[in-house]
Amino acid sequence: MRNSNREWVFAQRPDGEPDMDSFELREGDVPEPRHGELLVRVRYLSVDPYMRGRMRDAESYAEPWDIGDPMAGAVVGEVVESESDAYEAGDLVTGNGTWADYSVLDAESVAPVDPSVADLPAYLGVLGMPGRTAYFGLLEVGEPKPGDTVVVSGAAGAVGSVVGQIAKLNGCRVVGFAGTDEKVEWLTDDLGFDAAINYKQVEDYRTALDDAARSGVDVYFDNVGGPITDAVFTKLNLDARVAVCGQIAHYNDESVPTGPRKLPQLISVRAKVQGLLVGDYATRFEAASEQLGEWVVSGEISHRESVVDGLENAPDAFLGLFSGDNIGKQVVAVSDPSTTN
Amino acid sequence: MRNSNREWVFAQRPDGEPDMDSFELREGDVPEPRHGELLVRVRYLSVDPYMRGRMRDAESYAEPWDIGDPMAGAVVGEVVESESDAYEAGDLVTGNGTWADYSVLDAESVAPVDPSVADLPAYLGVLGMPGRTAYFGLLEVGEPKPGDTVVVSGAAGAVGSVVGQIAKLNGCRVVGFAGTDEKVEWLTDDLGFDAAINYKQVEDYRTALDDAARSGVDVYFDNVGGPITDAVFTKLNLDARVAVCGQIAHYNDESVPTGPRKLPQLISVRAKVQGLLVGDYATRFEAASEQLGEWVVSGEISHRESVVDGLENAPDAFLGLFSGDNIGKQVVAVSDPSTTN
Repeated sequence: MRNSNREWVFAQRPDGEPDMDSFELREGDVPEPRHGELLVRVRYLSVDPYMRGRMRDAESYAEPWDIGDPMAGAVVGEVVESESDAYEAGDLVTGNGTWADYSVLDAESVAPVDPSVADLPAYLGVLGMPGRTAYFGLLEVGEPKPGDTVVVSGAAGAVGSVVGQIAKLNGCRVVGFAGTDEKVEWLTDDLGFDAAINYKQVEDYRTALDDAARSGVDVYFDNVGGPITDAVFTKLNLDARVAVCGQIAHYNDESVPTGPRKLPQLISVRAKVQGLLVGDYATRFEAASEQLGEWVVSGEISHRESVVDGLENAPDAFLGLFSGDNIGKQVVAVSDPSTTN
Repeated sequence: MRNSNREWVFAQRPDGEPDMDSFELREGDVPEPRHGELLVRVRYLSVDPYMRGRMRDAESYAEPWDIGDPMAGAVVGEVVESESDAYEAGDLVTGNGTWADYSVLDAESVAPVDPSVADLPAYLGVLGMPGRTAYFGLLEVGEPKPGDTVVVSGAAGAVGSVVGQIAKLNGCRVVGFAGTDEKVEWLTDDLGFDAAINYKQVEDYRTALDDAARSGVDVYFDNVGGPITDAVFTKLNLDARVAVCGQIAHYNDESVPTGPRKLPQLISVRAKVQGLLVGDYATRFEAASEQLGEWVVSGEISHRESVVDGLENAPDAFLGLFSGDNIGKQVVAVSDPSTTN
């Protein structure tokens, strides 16, 4: 075990698009777990768009970070010291930690990780919070029915890629929006999307949808917002459902963004638009994880992670989310499993 | 019975705000009912904001009118000739007719009118489509719970005034937006609203809501759209419900209106926003009408109609909806009941 610990802290609130000034890497002692806690050597950490919200000094669903707070998020790692009867040194776990070499996790909030089901990074994606978000968001808010056309924005992201595949398992026609040809090919060739639109290459999203979603849109799973969403709203069918999961196009906006008003459109089609936060389904996480694990093992759901190497590159990995650098789930590899703890 | 019949027809599609050019009064023969139809002498006709949508040459929930079509809408009148076993001459009925002295109604689509329950104009308001819209929209989409704060825009209109009172009967705190002091007084003094805001007199809707809806907004029943709606959205509570019933502020817009994007706000509060059309609840109209009738007879729901006299003034009554001339339901008195049919 190393004698010192590196940890990223939140250094400055960004104004608009965040940059490296928001992060500071500090070196200190390896923390000591107290009763009920685990000291975990972090193998992989998760960077997620929602973290941008915690950088704001404004009330939201996730507590805002104070300057100097450690950058926090989901991690996968190996227990090196346990102050809990539930886990022992050597166990692989996932839970809420920090962007650090070593992080202290509450034993009650972690879940065991089974590398025979999937590689560790998958526990931050399809088998983690993003997978559960896709699961509950699509099934509970989107309410897909066989034959429905489901449109997903941010379709090649950690959540969107799982949404589309669950929709396919439910007998839907699935159309995804993504930002590179490589992503589009992954969606259609590997994940079974019926169509995917490279939104950076098409001139008009509505025209593209006319082709890809000829019979209109029954379910829209929105991770993005902005002009893609504006276009999809014009294609909503009677009784359509819109699950508002993310609005990454707007997370860096400095003032309230404006756009076409959507409420007038909702009346004629009686569409339902609902915000979604996976934490609301916490009592059912276990069942969801079990189902997602089965789909992963059976190959019914494919997954992919983009791995950035090195704790020192964690802010870059985070910033890359806003330019769409990731295919599938973006994670950071912190320590090589072959090194000694 | 008169020998001739006056009837308003749709003369020209309006560009933006409609004016008299859209209407033409034609004189012709009194129509003859066919099998299953009733010839009705129209006593009162209804003018409603949704009719603006039918003036557009665009697909919507209500069939667009063609130029030369009769202006159609709900009427209350007396059967003067019946080709149906269900009704006979002298019966008072309500149903879908035309802006005319005499109108032919499908007997299967009309309902009897009982003047002992309420005066005839009420059958176009609280006991007609607007009342049922309020009933289903609030109860099915708004899902009010005791203690909820319910905000209603267009609160002194035909729908809004009933929404607020049903919300009170469900144990809610009710706040209304209206456009004159007289309306505000009616809402608070006669209808039991807890607060009402004259939106033409306050500088900032959000500040006004800070006072009137201190604990935030659980249910928003929107008849209006525009800046009032923008303000209410910033005050939505966790799991809030928004029933989008009307958007009268935008019905005359010539291009797609823009405004603050609302989807980002929905995530943190997981609010549900849903468009609403009363026709979706047609199988339950009878039960709703019965309940509304009981509330009217018991005095638990008050109602008011603004009556414009004379068929020749029907277009004026319709145009007045967009400047908020009406308090409660706007109707047009077509024939005096004391005159001979």
